[in-house]
Amino acid sequence: MYTSSTSLHYFFYVHYNNIPGDALATQSGDAVSGASDDHKLPESHQQPSGFQRQVYLPRLEGIRVGHVQKVSLVPDKVHEMRTLSLKPLLFEIPGFLSEEECRVVVQLAQMKGLMESQVMVPEGQEELTEQLNLSAEEIFNLLDLNQDGQLQLQEILTHSRVLDGIWLTPENLREIYAGLKADPDGNGLLSLEEFRLLGTDAFQRFLQQRGVKSSQLVRNSRHTWLYQGQGSHQVLRDLKNRVTRLTRLPSALVDLSEPLQVVRYEQGGHYHAHHDSGPVYPETACTHTRLAANSSTPFETSCRYITVLFYLNSVEGGGETAFPVADNRTYEEVSLIQNNVDLMDTRKNCDKSNLRVKPVRGTAVFWYNYLSDGQGWVGEQDEYSLHGGCVVTRGTKWVANNWINIDPDYQRQARYQQLVSQQEGAGEGAEDEGKQSVSQSSPEQLHPDDSHQEL
Amino acid sequence: MYTSSTSLHYFFYVHYNNIPGDALATQSGDAVSGASDDHKLPESHQQPSGFQRQVYLPRLEGIRVGHVQKVSLVPDKVHEMRTLSLKPLLFEIPGFLSEEECRVVVQLAQMKGLMESQVMVPEGQEELTEQLNLSAEEIFNLLDLNQDGQLQLQEILTHSRVLDGIWLTPENLREIYAGLKADPDGNGLLSLEEFRLLGTDAFQRFLQQRGVKSSQLVRNSRHTWLYQGQGSHQVLRDLKNRVTRLTRLPSALVDLSEPLQVVRYEQGGHYHAHHDSGPVYPETACTHTRLAANSSTPFETSCRYITVLFYLNSVEGGGETAFPVADNRTYEEVSLIQNNVDLMDTRKNCDKSNLRVKPVRGTAVFWYNYLSDGQGWVGEQDEYSLHGGCVVTRGTKWVANNWINIDPDYQRQARYQQLVSQQEGAGEGAEDEGKQSVSQSSPEQLHPDDSHQEL
Repeated sequence: MYTSSTSLHYFFYVHYNNIPGDALATQSGDAVSGASDDHKLPESHQQPSGFQRQVYLPRLEGIRVGHVQKVSLVPDKVHEMRTLSLKPLLFEIPGFLSEEECRVVVQLAQMKGLMESQVMVPEGQEELTEQLNLSAEEIFNLLDLNQDGQLQLQEILTHSRVLDGIWLTPENLREIYAGLKADPDGNGLLSLEEFRLLGTDAFQRFLQQRGVKSSQLVRNSRHTWLYQGQGSHQVLRDLKNRVTRLTRLPSALVDLSEPLQVVRYEQGGHYHAHHDSGPVYPETACTHTRLAANSSTPFETSCRYITVLFYLNSVEGGGETAFPVADNRTYEEVSLIQNNVDLMDTRKNCDKSNLRVKPVRGTAVFWYNYLSDGQGWVGEQDEYSLHGGCVVTRGTKWVANNWINIDPDYQRQARYQQLVSQQEGAGEGAEDEGKQSVSQSSPEQLHPDDSHQEL
Repeated sequence: MYTSSTSLHYFFYVHYNNIPGDALATQSGDAVSGASDDHKLPESHQQPSGFQRQVYLPRLEGIRVGHVQKVSLVPDKVHEMRTLSLKPLLFEIPGFLSEEECRVVVQLAQMKGLMESQVMVPEGQEELTEQLNLSAEEIFNLLDLNQDGQLQLQEILTHSRVLDGIWLTPENLREIYAGLKADPDGNGLLSLEEFRLLGTDAFQRFLQQRGVKSSQLVRNSRHTWLYQGQGSHQVLRDLKNRVTRLTRLPSALVDLSEPLQVVRYEQGGHYHAHHDSGPVYPETACTHTRLAANSSTPFETSCRYITVLFYLNSVEGGGETAFPVADNRTYEEVSLIQNNVDLMDTRKNCDKSNLRVKPVRGTAVFWYNYLSDGQGWVGEQDEYSLHGGCVVTRGTKWVANNWINIDPDYQRQARYQQLVSQQEGAGEGAEDEGKQSVSQSSPEQLHPDDSHQEL
């Protein structure tokens, strides 16, 4: 629906040069992470197939909400890590960054320059509808969840919270109805007759003509990407190593993940609730392992196994990170919007979220966007990881994100890492220019689409 | 408050003779449990003290509700294990026992004879109140949760669901008020004046004089204990080994646990919601490791880390196992009784439980009554493990329980196992009579109190 910048991804595929031959085929023990767990799979859990995994990804234990464990991340200091929720598995570590480190990260981002996180891009919604080849009646029937022959606002919103990157609310839906004269009787309901009179892309065309304010978008922030590999600022490399220790994952996986994303929210900025990474079906590809995919696939997601979120300043007002359904007994998409209350709307309903984390300078929170597969690898998406940034009511909010990308398809991840290490090897003779030569092997081809599929 | 029979515990401390020298000081790999996980503690998690644990108790992964994993428990058959909840961590395994095995267990129990699970025993409630040395005003104030100067029925029940083994309900509280003329204005509220006129043990004396039906007790069933060690029926030994494989715990821990408890509920039978094992504070002793405790302690609980519950028949009507708060977002004792609905009352409110398991012959369910301590050992009580047996509306219900007792104090558990193995060694010369000689070393002293503290 919307795109974010691709310009920094250039670095991502270029600079890595500390990757062991086949990082995944070796045990996960590595020099950086003294705390790494080397779990071997119990025999009974091993795959019957010829290809046996030799890595068992550690997953931290949450124990219970409020549980505090001590972790050793930097010399001469012990951090406390508190469990904030089990669904998603979510932890908070105060003082993860020093004040000085926060300052450096913000300054590096400012030097680099930040771009709008979201720009309104008219996109192929119409096309999709045409491809589907559905009649107006059929679409009406699909949207009419309670089958009462009328479309409530809620039914429209449950189906689509976002239109071309614009966040839909009951209010702006009414406004669209009014603008389009779609609901002449003004009862907020669309009958089949009324629906039929609208073109399939009537809403979109109306919104594009009218124009939107940034506060009406899914997210309202600016961001940039900071490369963390060799040659980058010491603070950024320290941070990456600290994340490796924290998550206890093999350093090769962390090294091959996205660069650090630094985000600035001005007063009034927000990010409505979303998943950092989508569900993974058999036909879903991961953006980062596209290189190793055998064929083009219809679905793609970023496969961000873990999100590590750093608060770089203490926000004067608002700006909490909200987890609307953390530790809910069940997850039901339809219950996210009920009685005109949309739990995903972080401009309005953060106070109704199950969990809110207040931004405090230097604190890190991190969570798993995917469950375990029960066999030591990445499993299904954890729907409870839904989260958003509440509107900043006062001051500016600076955060940074480290995502750790792992393909739930173990073989694809392994192939990918092998391919990258081969490319590294090929570029090695050229030394400094090697970087350039790898970058010329068409990063666009590896990464043709940078839509982060965050919703 | 009430006692259950101690007679079978004789066997528990007698017959074990397959315990390795120091079972806990060795790795947990053992011949019985092919599926055993040998997790070593990651370095960063090891205790700084001189005493380093060498065992990391495996804990199964639940992944998410509905997750199914295949487990290998018997030759030539693969069982499916389904996650029923994460809080508590709870699994269901259909066909864990064959029909024949169910029949044998029921017959063995019948041959042995079953006793009333609960008999009304007048006990030292009065004494306790006197010990506390509180005035009527002070007690009134403690009970008056909302501090409105009156005691609602709910406030009485939140404080004490059980009086001398009798389950209190709003109805029988009203009956007690009427019998004692405690609430002359009949508004169901006790003022301080009204409360002051009652003696501290007025309720108890009234109930004892009036007498109670078994349906008014906490539990209404009969049970017996079946020893599962060497010399016992093959089916019982098979069952024990299967439990070891299922839980992946060291066999020594399973061997040293309570015998199999077989329970029969007649039509009308029930067991109100309870914890199989209580919270563990620093000064709490475990019943099974009393032998190794350094001093007498004021609190004691059974330290049942895991409950494995077998359904020995398919019940015609009712008899579900209810988990009132499974996977609730929070656990609050006061919210268990609200608007006159007591979620712990399995005669009335099973339909309001978050989770109910239907008894199907041969199915096993098992859950953890304690959380992990995050370091590979038993941690805090899992309050969400609250469960009960719904009233049997038709037919008879036969179940069996295997509890796995582990002391959350690792050192006490280790000392206990060493002591038992020494006793075993001492008795060894006498061969068959050795059993007798150990039993004569005063099982009562080891196990003076058999109140299972199930509530």
